Formats: sequence, C-alpha cells, structure tokens
Amino acid sequence: MNNRSLMDIDTVALCDEDSAIVIIDQTKLPGTIETVSLHTQKEIWDAIYRLMVRGAPAIGDTAAMAYYLAAKGHIKDDPAVSPDALTEMLPEDKAYMASSRPTAVNLFWALDRMERVYLANREKTNEEILAILRAECEEIKDEDIRVCHAIGEYGLSLVKPGDGILTHCNAGQLATAKYGTATAPIYLGQERGYHFRVFADETRPLLQGARLTAAELHASGVDVTVICDNMSSSVMQRGWVDAVFVGCDRVAANGDTANKIGTSVVACVARQYGVPVYICAPTSTIDMNCPTGADIPIEERRPEEVTELWYKERMAPEGIKVYNPAFDVTDHTLIAGIVTEYGIARPPYDKSFAEIFAKKEEHPL
Amino acid sequence: MNNRSLMDIDTVALCDEDSAIVIIDQTKLPGTIETVSLHTQKEIWDAIYRLMVRGAPAIGDTAAMAYYLAAKGHIKDDPAVSPDALTEMLPEDKAYMASSRPTAVNLFWALDRMERVYLANREKTNEEILAILRAECEEIKDEDIRVCHAIGEYGLSLVKPGDGILTHCNAGQLATAKYGTATAPIYLGQERGYHFRVFADETRPLLQGARLTAAELHASGVDVTVICDNMSSSVMQRGWVDAVFVGCDRVAANGDTANKIGTSVVACVARQYGVPVYICAPTSTIDMNCPTGADIPIEERRPEEVTELWYKERMAPEGIKVYNPAFDVTDHTLIAGIVTEYGIARPPYDKSFAEIFAKKEEHPL
Repeated sequence: MNNRSLMDIDTVALCDEDSAIVIIDQTKLPGTIETVSLHTQKEIWDAIYRLMVRGAPAIGDTAAMAYYLAAKGHIKDDPAVSPDALTEMLPEDKAYMASSRPTAVNLFWALDRMERVYLANREKTNEEILAILRAECEEIKDEDIRVCHAIGEYGLSLVKPGDGILTHCNAGQLATAKYGTATAPIYLGQERGYHFRVFADETRPLLQGARLTAAELHASGVDVTVICDNMSSSVMQRGWVDAVFVGCDRVAANGDTANKIGTSVVACVARQYGVPVYICAPTSTIDMNCPTGADIPIEERRPEEVTELWYKERMAPEGIKVYNPAFDVTDHTLIAGIVTEYGIARPPYDKSFAEIFAKKEEHPL
Repeated sequence: MNNRSLMDIDTVALCDEDSAIVIIDQTKLPGTIETVSLHTQKEIWDAIYRLMVRGAPAIGDTAAMAYYLAAKGHIKDDPAVSPDALTEMLPEDKAYMASSRPTAVNLFWALDRMERVYLANREKTNEEILAILRAECEEIKDEDIRVCHAIGEYGLSLVKPGDGILTHCNAGQLATAKYGTATAPIYLGQERGYHFRVFADETRPLLQGARLTAAELHASGVDVTVICDNMSSSVMQRGWVDAVFVGCDRVAANGDTANKIGTSVVACVARQYGVPVYICAPTSTIDMNCPTGADIPIEERRPEEVTELWYKERMAPEGIKVYNPAFDVTDHTLIAGIVTEYGIARPPYDKSFAEIFAKKEEHPL
C-alpha cells in the first residue's frame, strides 16, 4: 500500500463478523502500512498500551468496541448466560480495558457510556443487548466524525489562508475516526484551498509527529515540514507560525490541559512570540470532575522508549536514570482558546465550559 | 574501555610526534569509546563538520592545532620554504578550516589568533616558527582549562547544594579540554559534595545530551537523569529545577546567545516557571562585532539527521520537508546572567561586557 491509501483505511473498525477489531498498526508507520486484527481482550489491551492504536478519540472508539466484544464473548461462551451473571462479569472487562492507559479520559468515558447503555438494557434478550451495544459503538464512532468536523469548522474560523500552523504529536485522522481534532481545521482548509504551511513537531520519544502527522498530512497533499521538538522557538522567531493547534487527552475544569508530553513546552514558546495556542477538544475530553491539571494522573512510560531510539540502538549510557512522562499539563493561562464541537471556549473556562455543555445539552450533535 | 575511562582521555591532543591530532570520536559515544588520529587538513575538516569533535572551545583547540599542522606540513614538504611563500599558503588553510562550521565563533577566534602569532613571527626561522605555533596551541588549550575552571567557580556561586540543574546539549568536558563550560559548576560542585540533581536534555537531532553529557556526568558519578527535549516543562513544573546552565557558540554584544538548537526553547520554558537561565561563556565566544542575535549566521544541516534517527531507520515519510537548524538564538531578555571566566555579566549586557573585557585586559587568566 502506498502512502496515499493510508487515508482510505479506517483507523479502527469492527471486522470478521464482529469477532475482532481491525486497526492500522501505528507503530509501523510511516514505513509500513499494515492492518492488524485484535480478537481477544488482551490483544486489544496490548494494542492500546503499545500505541498500535492511539489518540484519545480513537482509544475511546476502540474501548467501546472492546466492551461490545467482551459482552459478545460471554454470550457466545454461554448463550443462556443470565442478566445477573453478565452484569457481574462485564465490570471486570471494563476495569481491565480501563487499565491500559491512565491519562486519556475518552477511554473511561467510552467504557462508562457502554456500561450505562448495557445497564439500561440488561433485562432485554442477549441478542437484543448485543444489537444495542453494537449500535452504540457505531454511534460513538459516527459522533467522533461529526465532532471532529465541527471542531474543524470552528478551528478554521481562527486562521486565514496561507497561515503557518504548528502542531505537536498526532491529533490527526489516525487519532480519530476521521479528520482528527487538531488536524480537522487543516483538512477542511485544504479542501477549500487555504494553502496552510504546517510544521509538525516530531514528538519524542515515540515520534508520532514525524511518523504519523507528517505521513497523513503529506499523503493528503498538505504542505508539511517536520521539525524536532526543540525547533519550535526557531520557527516562531522567524514569524513562520500564526497559530498552534494541538489535541488533548484530558482538559480540567479550569482549562488546564493534559496532552502529549511537550505540549506545554510549545505553549511556553508560543507565549514568548505571541502566537495563540488552541486546544482542539471534543467535549468528551473535558473532565469537569477534575478541578485543575494537578488532578490529572500522568502516565510514566518505560525508559527504553527514550534510550533505545525506536528499539534499534542504545543512545544513552547503560544504567542512566530516565524520566519519561507521556503527557504534560499546559496551564490554562497559556491557552488562547479551547475549540470544541460546540464552539470555542475562552477564558475564564469555568464560565465558557458551562455554556458549551449547556449548548451540548440543548442541541446534541 | 569502560565509561569511567572516558574522563581520562583528552578530548583533543596532538599526537604521533605532532603529525596528527587525536580525538575521541564523539559520534560513536556512548556505545564505543574510540580515539581517531586525524592526519590531513581534510580529515580534520571532516571531523569538525561531522561532529566527531564538537563544542565551541574544543573546536577552537582543534582549529589551532590544524593551523600548526598546516604550517608544519608546508615546511616538511619544502624545508627551505620562504616566509613569503608560507605567508601566501597559510591563509588558504585557514579559510578551508574556517568553512567547516559557520556558527561557533571560537573556530574563527582560534584561527585568527594563530595567524596573528604566525605573522608576528614570520621572519624567524621555520624551526622557530613551528615551535612558537606549537606553544600557542598548547597555550590555547591550557587557557581553555583555566577559563572553564574559572567559569565553574563563578557558576557554582549561583547555586546551592542539592539544587536541580538542567542542561541542554553538551557543553561538557567533551566540548572543551577539561571541566566543560556549563558542566564546570557541576564538576566543581561534585568535588565539594554539592550533590546536584542534573537533568540532561537529550538534544535532538544528534542527541549530544543523551550520548555525551549523560555519559560524562554518569561516568563521573553525578546524579543525572536523561529527558527528551520536550520534557523540560514537566520537570520545571514539578519544581525539580533550580537553575539552567548551558554553553554557547556565540554571544552577541547585546547578550543574545546562539547555542545548540533548543536552547531558546528551554529559556522560554524557564521564564514561565521563574527558573534562571545562565549562559556559560568563555569571553572568546562573546562577539562584540555582532550587535544582536539576528546577525549570527545559523547553520542548517542535512534533513537526514532528523528523518533517519542516527542513520538507522527512516522515521518520517519519504519526500517530507524538514527544517534542521543546528542552533537557535536565545533572546537576552530570557537570560539571567552570562557566566564568563572574568565574572558574571548581568543585563544590560553592553555595560557588563565592557566591564568583563576591561577586567580581562587588566588581569588575563
């Protein structure tokens, strides 16, 4: 498969008559475009943990499908399983899948949503329950696409044709079902002849920016330039960047935003050069139960991700200490706006989030 | 050779009865500690260009030796070479070596100094000229050691035992004849039981922080933790960093400082968290002929340094654009102080640099 066809493959989908989930193995990009079928709960857990599928919305989509497949598996094992037995087993599956990654709130959000739907329908027949859970998976994925498109429209209103846009990590199509979050304004602009010049931070240690964002934007014909994470100041100093668009894994109630490690570095740099930073955030990533960024758990990962450079050669001395947080928190004071599918939240965020959620309540997408 | 012996090898030295320069091949660290002898001007040029020997002071030491070896070569080729013939040939050798890297001012400074010494002695016998040039090489290297030690003492006065120190790239012993510049306060503190906790930015694309700084500090028993360049905000947010010490390749008259790409990113981040940034700068790197950072030429290097991850595997799509500047400029407003061997310059830098140079004039080290 060539690069262009990368855009034609679903990031995540049910397959094999709903016995498995098929994903693009994102650890192999950009060199190899390969899909993998995940049959067991453990295979799905591993795929999330190992970042074969990643990006908060795509993890949510995957977790929802995992919940459906767990229910389907129990019913297949025992077609006459009772509602009580199923209700006892599913929380274990849910807790297992929730343990795959701690920071992205969509994982928990999607699992909670599937559980709510299950509990509301637990007295139905097993066949009906499976049909309802399957429909909910599809609805979560369809919503993901509608949400990203809406974020794209709002994001596009913040920039103009020819602008330079910097993005970090991959909040792209590969992180969602379609469009991406941070890339949605770029793709919509591309369709409308905006000719953005995009800078993609490579995003150490796992290089999602160089491997994924650059690959998908390049495959779509967008003008994209890869830079190392430590070059953001250079490109902003030269006046090449008009706006920063990034995704997020969890937004606290005060606007503090956890996203891929290095996002807050970009935000500090952007502040120095007066470049606005926009967080592209589906409302499902806004966690009103989390007062500030200090309350967001930050995943720490294996030192080898840093020292062994994509598992090829050791690039730091043996025995050296390594600090390898997967995310950081960008203070709300460094954020110009949080772009949701219901509009752009501006500081103070407690007030603007309340308005966003009221709008969501009134007219859900 | 084990890691510990890394500290016992000269970064750069004359060898083989002054027919060559021996260096540690820094591109092979930390995996392999290997010395290489450079016999021809082209071999020396390549070693500087390819970063086998790097760091502004060490490049200066190497360039001085290259000038001496060039003179020695001409005299060996024709023992009766006339002063006029030698005076005609040496500028070509000097220009060639000066073209190896454009940003570090020490390269030009060392070559100019050797040329001045040569011109002042050009009427002496060829044997005398060689002895004088050789002595000047040794003096440049000895000065480098005295300068680094003095910078270490001044730098040490800015921190206290137990402090967290962040550094970027390698301004260490491997970048100088001894002590390093940014690492000099760390090594002197280590000798005095200061127990610093050091964070070493890995420093993409060539990973001098992970490969060199971490290796030499670790070999010296310093508590050092490697982080990716995009994690500086995380460690500062947690309050783990009390000061940033970095080296520099050229300081403009207003204090703007060119150093390894990413230094200005660290400075923007440090500003956000109120952490002071100190530039460790031998006065030979302060270029009073350069009014501001905008006047410092910034070397751009091959895209493959970014896309091919230490020459192993391609990590960004084929055909992608890459921006790969080797240095960036840190605005003087982001710098708390510039630590020279004659004291600590504070803003406004035009005034404090004048005082530093007056002190140098009066009591040279």
